[in-house]
Amino acid sequence: MSTAALTPDLQAPTGNLDITVSRAELLRELTAAQSVVERKTTIPILSNFLFEVSDEGVLTITATDLDQSLKTSCPARVKKSGACTVPARKLYDYIKLLPEGDISIKLQDNHWVQIRAGRSNTKMVGMARANFPAVPEFPGVGVFKINAANLRNMISKTIFAISNEESRYTLNGALLVLKAESMAMVATDGHRLAHIEKTGENMEVSGEKKTLIPRKALAELMSLLNNSDAETLEFADDDQTLFFRIGGRVLTSRKLTGQFPNYEAVLPRDNTKFVIVRSEDLMGSIQRVAQFADERSGAIKIRLEQNELKLSAQSTDAGESEDIIETPYNYDPLVVGFNSSYLVDFLKATGNTGEVRLEFKDAQSAGQMRPEDGNEEVKYRYILMPMRI
Amino acid sequence: MSTAALTPDLQAPTGNLDITVSRAELLRELTAAQSVVERKTTIPILSNFLFEVSDEGVLTITATDLDQSLKTSCPARVKKSGACTVPARKLYDYIKLLPEGDISIKLQDNHWVQIRAGRSNTKMVGMARANFPAVPEFPGVGVFKINAANLRNMISKTIFAISNEESRYTLNGALLVLKAESMAMVATDGHRLAHIEKTGENMEVSGEKKTLIPRKALAELMSLLNNSDAETLEFADDDQTLFFRIGGRVLTSRKLTGQFPNYEAVLPRDNTKFVIVRSEDLMGSIQRVAQFADERSGAIKIRLEQNELKLSAQSTDAGESEDIIETPYNYDPLVVGFNSSYLVDFLKATGNTGEVRLEFKDAQSAGQMRPEDGNEEVKYRYILMPMRI
Repeated sequence: MSTAALTPDLQAPTGNLDITVSRAELLRELTAAQSVVERKTTIPILSNFLFEVSDEGVLTITATDLDQSLKTSCPARVKKSGACTVPARKLYDYIKLLPEGDISIKLQDNHWVQIRAGRSNTKMVGMARANFPAVPEFPGVGVFKINAANLRNMISKTIFAISNEESRYTLNGALLVLKAESMAMVATDGHRLAHIEKTGENMEVSGEKKTLIPRKALAELMSLLNNSDAETLEFADDDQTLFFRIGGRVLTSRKLTGQFPNYEAVLPRDNTKFVIVRSEDLMGSIQRVAQFADERSGAIKIRLEQNELKLSAQSTDAGESEDIIETPYNYDPLVVGFNSSYLVDFLKATGNTGEVRLEFKDAQSAGQMRPEDGNEEVKYRYILMPMRI
Repeated sequence: MSTAALTPDLQAPTGNLDITVSRAELLRELTAAQSVVERKTTIPILSNFLFEVSDEGVLTITATDLDQSLKTSCPARVKKSGACTVPARKLYDYIKLLPEGDISIKLQDNHWVQIRAGRSNTKMVGMARANFPAVPEFPGVGVFKINAANLRNMISKTIFAISNEESRYTLNGALLVLKAESMAMVATDGHRLAHIEKTGENMEVSGEKKTLIPRKALAELMSLLNNSDAETLEFADDDQTLFFRIGGRVLTSRKLTGQFPNYEAVLPRDNTKFVIVRSEDLMGSIQRVAQFADERSGAIKIRLEQNELKLSAQSTDAGESEDIIETPYNYDPLVVGFNSSYLVDFLKATGNTGEVRLEFKDAQSAGQMRPEDGNEEVKYRYILMPMRI
């Protein structure tokens, strides 16, 4: 590098960005931001956090994997404003290992970033700020306020039903449906469908606003909502991007393209045969007999007879197992097969407490499960296609 | 199988082995025994438990992977005595999922085993009892009594230093040294060595009894000792097998062949330069700087200067990091490199509490670590080969 003297502008100005932050405050925000950072990216800059400091005493932290971005901030005592990028995982792990106290962060030559705390002194290899991609800015108009607890509940009740098949593009997310007096969320993988609707809302929506939210964004939202005491969040979108503001944090997500299937057509209307059982009893019985189901299909048989729900499974390798739950049932006998892990998913989503209602039509038609909790404002239903058994 | 009528003796007698056991008692013993069962065995019978019932109201449970065996038992109400084998993992998982209560176990035709509890009814595909290999019986003579808590402590302080290289056959275990007034255990992988000696014992040993115990047996012993309130265990061996009796459970292990290295030759005698630091401080500093060590070697640099212990590491990818701990030191300055994860292993084994003493000779010689706990009866030392840095 004997040409260094000829190219002085390749040297970052020394002394740029020089701040002190509280370890606890920094760690809290890094924890929120680091999950957006892609672990295995082929684009090195995406492994970094962008740190930006203006003179107003705020450190802004940005992370992105190009599909999503998260922007957050924490208070900083500013000696010099500026910007730098820092390896995200490395920084996060290092800050976690530091004891409580003040941390000073200083940009040095060649994008190195110095982190000092107590008698610990570290220099990390950063990259030029100019390489960090621009992330979309939260729009000024078309912003909806959504109750945080309601959204969190809706996500937790549907996210597990989203398709894992990358090829089924429009099923890789859940549909959020906002209306003036209700909000709903629905997810399906083609074999089962989870639908939850909360009425008694008061939203500034004219007609109906339907938004497909990718699974990754839902997971990120869940995590942000779990770590925030904000009562409402702000939601907006433009042609390409979804925006969520929770407290001081902004999550963006690239939109999924395509049409979510017409789920209303598959909601069962005449599943008139039903039983009500304790969720915990049903879970125990399913888990026991599922051990003996065919490993690939996971199929178990549900047989309804006079005041009796019988679950059974068998496989040539393992043997056979059945479990009986006594419960009022006075309709015609019925035998129908389901994927045991789909049944378990629903019971887990309801917290495996209280009672659950199983509604059937016949062995060829979709079954429906609902919590028997008497909550009039929240309607939660889960539809499962039957399996041949 | 139209020949069935011609070969009636292939049919197991119906109604053989018929017992009732308590789910809690059975589960406790299956939990102890299942860890000996090999998960991925090419010999199907080794995936099974052997159940044997005599008329005395005891169910004996045996598991083996041919290297090790575990034999235990639980009370049983016996309708019919006999023996059968049951798929170990399947049974364990199933019993775990059953509610508390009585469980009936009954051998049926073709080695199927019926398990019933409440309204659950399961048949598992077992195998013929005759296929189950014989396991060695605990000897009647040459039995040593060992304090359970002491052995447990010695294993936990040395097991991590055992070599992971399968090819270094005689290093795949720890050496137990019993003398009339002391017991000791030592393990090494050629790069570091952990040695612990407990004096003030009163053992019926003439001279010295050295036994190499395989790592797998040590891990099993730890688990058995952790789940038993027995104060002493019985130890014996013959030409091929080690035997341990803890409470009602007998663990056997095939012996390792070969000569454990002459470890006494490598114990440092003149490491006269030392520092004493808080274990927690040292752990924090090591973990922080180790993040910036070369990933393959994990090498960090220890620099001792006037009243100062400095730890540092650097790598081209990640950057560089140093940490300083202030502590009395008045010998000549010294710089020496160690594998950071070896240092961490020792601190974890001591529970990362109290103080630790680091003893050195020079940059080319092994370092030694010892807990500074003033325990006269337990001498614990850890020797590390230096690394070039």
